[in-house]
Amino acid sequence: MSVEPHRPNTILVGRKPPINYVMAALKLLNEEGVEEVVIKARGRNICTAVEAVEMLKNLFLKNAEVKEVNIYREELVDDQGRQRSVTAIEIVVSKK
Amino acid sequence: MSVEPHRPNTILVGRKPPINYVMAALKLLNEEGVEEVVIKARGRNICTAVEAVEMLKNLFLKNAEVKEVNIYREELVDDQGRQRSVTAIEIVVSKK
Repeated sequence: MSVEPHRPNTILVGRKPPINYVMAALKLLNEEGVEEVVIKARGRNICTAVEAVEMLKNLFLKNAEVKEVNIYREELVDDQGRQRSVTAIEIVVSKK
Repeated sequence: MSVEPHRPNTILVGRKPPINYVMAALKLLNEEGVEEVVIKARGRNICTAVEAVEMLKNLFLKNAEVKEVNIYREELVDDQGRQRSVTAIEIVVSKK
């Protein structure tokens, strides 16, 4: 599985409740011409991303399907300029 | 993506540090005839599973690759007999 660094229609999952990201994804998927969204998260937020995708699929958009799941490692530079490595996930959700 | 309920060579990730699951996976993959392992986790442990897979791939077994990632919802019955639904992940790691 390959990972493209800058995909369009990407939602970065942070520390908010999963429903916030479900709503963001729904909004994007309702736009004309948008066939898929990418739900992305790093480290401890990975479970929130998985939760958001499952909520989206099971409660809000019955015709949504998980097209692709990529897990990988990202190199980040923190406030002090130190490099640190975090795990990340990218879940591609598309309309059937 | 379909999910088989009882796959052989499955490691269930819990609350221990990721290295514990890396070691369990390495041990299994070194057994004769074992070509792949399934790293499985639920809820908050999903990030630990992703971390373990990345450690395995990048630090311990260079010829390991992520063959498949499934995310889904599981129905569990708790101590009080109540049913609750949790998100789960299954990551299939194979030797190249």
